[in-house]
Amino acid sequence: MIPADHPRYASLLAREKMADAVRSGMVVIEGASAHGRGEAFDCLLGERTTPGAARAGKTAAAFLIRAARPVISVNGNTAALAAGEIGALARASGALVEVNLFHRTDERLEKITRHLEEHGVSVLQGTAERLLPLSHDRALCLRGGIYAADVVLVPLEDGDRCAALVAMGKTVITIDLNPLSRTARTATVTIVDELTRALPVITRSCGELSAQEADELIRDHDNTRLLREAMATMKETLTHAVD
Amino acid sequence: MIPADHPRYASLLAREKMADAVRSGMVVIEGASAHGRGEAFDCLLGERTTPGAARAGKTAAAFLIRAARPVISVNGNTAALAAGEIGALARASGALVEVNLFHRTDERLEKITRHLEEHGVSVLQGTAERLLPLSHDRALCLRGGIYAADVVLVPLEDGDRCAALVAMGKTVITIDLNPLSRTARTATVTIVDELTRALPVITRSCGELSAQEADELIRDHDNTRLLREAMATMKETLTHAVD
Repeated sequence: MIPADHPRYASLLAREKMADAVRSGMVVIEGASAHGRGEAFDCLLGERTTPGAARAGKTAAAFLIRAARPVISVNGNTAALAAGEIGALARASGALVEVNLFHRTDERLEKITRHLEEHGVSVLQGTAERLLPLSHDRALCLRGGIYAADVVLVPLEDGDRCAALVAMGKTVITIDLNPLSRTARTATVTIVDELTRALPVITRSCGELSAQEADELIRDHDNTRLLREAMATMKETLTHAVD
Repeated sequence: MIPADHPRYASLLAREKMADAVRSGMVVIEGASAHGRGEAFDCLLGERTTPGAARAGKTAAAFLIRAARPVISVNGNTAALAAGEIGALARASGALVEVNLFHRTDERLEKITRHLEEHGVSVLQGTAERLLPLSHDRALCLRGGIYAADVVLVPLEDGDRCAALVAMGKTVITIDLNPLSRTARTATVTIVDELTRALPVITRSCGELSAQEADELIRDHDNTRLLREAMATMKETLTHAVD
């Protein structure tokens, strides 16, 4: 449908991938809007992994490999865009994978679980309970998954959920292109990068870091600095845009 | 569905409005992504009409009231978000309204036309011809509408389309929250503002400006300056975000 001579072909193609996921029922329409928000911030990042984001990814790996019970929380957008990358990271880090949805229905849970399994991901099964300090179904998670985790990776997460996990004393790692979002500002480690670029950085670091290097990264971690660096890159983009 | 205690309730509600328009078939899923991109830049603007955007809106009004054949080009997102505001501007400016879609189907054309008419908008009718210098169906427009126009307002327009209209010698006014987009940088007048905030500014100015004031605004217009001002505001937001 998109003419190949369109200068924004790649970006429109990615949007079409999200549209397919909406049509298949994995992603809600609101998820497509959220994806668009990410695209905008990625445009300001120059659509590349900045040095700060690379360091954030290494730090995320450090927390995951030093965790006792790491869990990756996967929503519809994450599954649609990066099922294979989630599987690779789960294997490299030893983290469990739990599907956790903002717009939660049994049908979507099943579709996303099946999609992840088709991409080689072992998905944690069980009966969700209202264990998070949130209203309504957003409180739902698995007792043996997110609830018991000490370190949780929640890519593309809602701000309330992120804050609730932090309030429960967990180390929360997020991947969020918007450095101004509540999620970005509340998480322990914020990787300001596009999902499919960020996940392989974490996976690779899980295999490379020694325990000592990991502990040093954890000790030196400063999330505010990471956010400042991301915002500085975005300001640079805005500065050089009109010549 | 969205809990009223959610701190981003208003923004999520707007996204739900777009989702409704997708479900009703007025907006394509890609349109919901595009809306999300706009939300991100609006967050950087502080979700308000900046002084530069207000001046851009007045300048847009100046071009519209001094035009011989002004036309407003309306797509799905514009109709879904601002049908009433489009009607008011058409009446205030004397511009014709033509529905023009990137993802064009007869069914969407009809739905959007009906929706606009329900909101009091007179929609130009006719058989579209391939009159724009673009490939495929994106070349379609009405001979007595966009093709014959000297001034075209195209809110939320694709970059190729915008460039094609400019290449045809038309004055192109756009409303685009992304000051970096090709549309924003190609148009004659770029209003970097949210659609439902920007349209009433233009409408009001259409009623207030004298011919002389309009001509002065046109003479003094500098679109690069407007874009720089919008980007400066966004940089300010990024500067003050982490304290």
